[in-house]
Amino acid sequence: MVDIATTLTAIKQGSAEVLVETALVERLKTGNPLRIKFGMDPTAPDLHLGHTLVLMKMQQLQALGHHIVLLIGDFTALIGDPTGKNITRQPLAKEQIDHNAQTYTQQVFKLLDPQKTEVLFNSQWLGEKGADFVLQLAARTTVARMLERDDFNKRFKLGTAIAIHEFLYPLLQGWDSVELKADVELGGTDQKFNLLMGRELQKNMGQQPQTIVTMPLLEGTDGVRKMSKSLGNYIGITESAEQMFGKIMSLSDALMWRYYDLLSSQSPQQITRFKAEIAAGANPRDYKIALAKEIICYYHNTTAAKQAHKDFMARFQQGAMPDDVPEMTLRINDKQIPIANLLKQAQLVRSTSEALRMLKSGAVKIDGVKITDKHLQIAPGTENIYQVGKRRFAKVKILLIVEKVEV
Amino acid sequence: MVDIATTLTAIKQGSAEVLVETALVERLKTGNPLRIKFGMDPTAPDLHLGHTLVLMKMQQLQALGHHIVLLIGDFTALIGDPTGKNITRQPLAKEQIDHNAQTYTQQVFKLLDPQKTEVLFNSQWLGEKGADFVLQLAARTTVARMLERDDFNKRFKLGTAIAIHEFLYPLLQGWDSVELKADVELGGTDQKFNLLMGRELQKNMGQQPQTIVTMPLLEGTDGVRKMSKSLGNYIGITESAEQMFGKIMSLSDALMWRYYDLLSSQSPQQITRFKAEIAAGANPRDYKIALAKEIICYYHNTTAAKQAHKDFMARFQQGAMPDDVPEMTLRINDKQIPIANLLKQAQLVRSTSEALRMLKSGAVKIDGVKITDKHLQIAPGTENIYQVGKRRFAKVKILLIVEKVEV
Repeated sequence: MVDIATTLTAIKQGSAEVLVETALVERLKTGNPLRIKFGMDPTAPDLHLGHTLVLMKMQQLQALGHHIVLLIGDFTALIGDPTGKNITRQPLAKEQIDHNAQTYTQQVFKLLDPQKTEVLFNSQWLGEKGADFVLQLAARTTVARMLERDDFNKRFKLGTAIAIHEFLYPLLQGWDSVELKADVELGGTDQKFNLLMGRELQKNMGQQPQTIVTMPLLEGTDGVRKMSKSLGNYIGITESAEQMFGKIMSLSDALMWRYYDLLSSQSPQQITRFKAEIAAGANPRDYKIALAKEIICYYHNTTAAKQAHKDFMARFQQGAMPDDVPEMTLRINDKQIPIANLLKQAQLVRSTSEALRMLKSGAVKIDGVKITDKHLQIAPGTENIYQVGKRRFAKVKILLIVEKVEV
Repeated sequence: MVDIATTLTAIKQGSAEVLVETALVERLKTGNPLRIKFGMDPTAPDLHLGHTLVLMKMQQLQALGHHIVLLIGDFTALIGDPTGKNITRQPLAKEQIDHNAQTYTQQVFKLLDPQKTEVLFNSQWLGEKGADFVLQLAARTTVARMLERDDFNKRFKLGTAIAIHEFLYPLLQGWDSVELKADVELGGTDQKFNLLMGRELQKNMGQQPQTIVTMPLLEGTDGVRKMSKSLGNYIGITESAEQMFGKIMSLSDALMWRYYDLLSSQSPQQITRFKAEIAAGANPRDYKIALAKEIICYYHNTTAAKQAHKDFMARFQQGAMPDDVPEMTLRINDKQIPIANLLKQAQLVRSTSEALRMLKSGAVKIDGVKITDKHLQIAPGTENIYQVGKRRFAKVKILLIVEKVEV
């Protein structure tokens, strides 16, 4: 039997919006567990803390006995973006999708119970549909309605091309809710339009429309933009304890509180107390350490958290970093800059090929954390200390010359 | 062997636009007959003179040895307009479509040679396509490009709903050109956008883009709007010789010249001569009679044309119509008015049920032509003499109160 009040509290806690709460209560009164849909794109297999807000919510609801459906949107991934303009939407091979989905679910199951989670692929029903299905689906909404979506609206006003198939994706995503007979759909606040499309189509098809629950978007380590792999401002949940620790220690104090609010299990009262302690003279660094350790405990374990702490302190206390690190600002045109180019422009190396050698040999660190990935891209809005070898340091702030509209 | 100059003259004569002529010449130089596509919607089986402009053009090109493909757009007809808002786009049953297509081609073959005409249905290829095909097709153009189409643009600016599937229809129609490998596509000037879509998709798919040839739109008997069955201002090619004669005699003098230009086989020089004769005092009625007889000869035969003329003159010379017919103007809200309501409002009958009885008994005439169809709708912009029984006459002009945007 479902406890209505507990479920409702769990759903509302930390969420940005619940729509429509009264209908949700009515549904809970039936005593049946909720069918909760969460859709994911099998194109970007690395989960980061930004994804965990909704995953923690599902974990909570699963623990209360509700039914979680993880929906892998493989159908559209198989198609990709045929215009070829959107590099994040290359068509993927079936094997690649399966591999991504597996990597994805493995990570998800760090939080959710695999035994109690239903994993479905939408190609199962969409793959069997004909051209006529798409036409009939497309007839269910209007151009004006689609242009209400924030990003479409911005692009339309700016004269940036919107390909027509982009109007079809929200409809297909909404159709998944019909197929799943979802009671609730979870997503980030940026997904609200698509989640509402599910409601509309369910109503159209004579189903009770799902309740939509949106979760706030977590800012990335730059404190400015949504956490995103492509922006390079993310903390991945499969990163090493050392990497996590370093990235969390690099957060601004203001951002630390945001992460406390959204990611820690500390109560609001406790967080208020922490703030008072700092106002009274305590060192914010200690609270950052506590946050880092709590998060590492989730994704690794206590031992790893302690070790990461110890290593960080050792580096810190050894004074490996000089006091007079030169500072510079790099202005870039693009939405990110490859690490090797950055090192060259910061004059830490003489050439990008030297940079690549240094990366390979493990001589490069960012904020004290060793970096070996030569494909690493650094996003504008970040400020980090880059180190090559023992003695070369630079604190580099990256700014974008022209702020592009995010699409 | 194709005669380039003759084909080019035939294509240009009377057409509104040829795009692109140089490319067409290049193609003619190969010496192969042109593959000429003409698409039709199997929803409205009654062909009228408005359709014949393009049919006469095809007849001419067929006689020059070119290959005509009549494409029946049955795929979209099977779907109809799922919003249910567009009454002309009800989904049709397969049997109905086959019946319509047959009626359609029977009429078309009054002008074209059935032996030399290839008839195809686009469900043949579109019916086998999956949902992914539509997504990929939709990716080939943009929302902004679609909104360039006149009617979409108007509706968008007015805030009238455009359902998303309406954006897909021009793409499917364009795809047909790819499947057919069309060299030329014919259509009315109002089809230009859709014909251009065929060019774009052919280019996309690595084919030589088709040349598009648009034909002017023939005004209906009201002289104002495009001839259209739904506007009630049409002359159907299967109508009786008597009906055709009556309708042509009711044309204004100005409209008579338009019909001479577009529908008769008289040369421009001859038409100029006719105009001069009238300016010198000849009766325009005689030229209208000549036009009526020529058109009836096409769709019936000389005997029928002569008989229709004789009958008309008999009615006319019997003076069956009084000199002092009362005139009135009727302003309507709707795009047409049922004949029974019109007769009542014109005070020719006391009630619509009396009107229906009179229609049934053959006592109703419009411009001297007997009318028995109780479903007949009269469009705004028309001016005709209505007669009930022997003595009741009224000349009724119908105007629209609010001009709606045609969709």
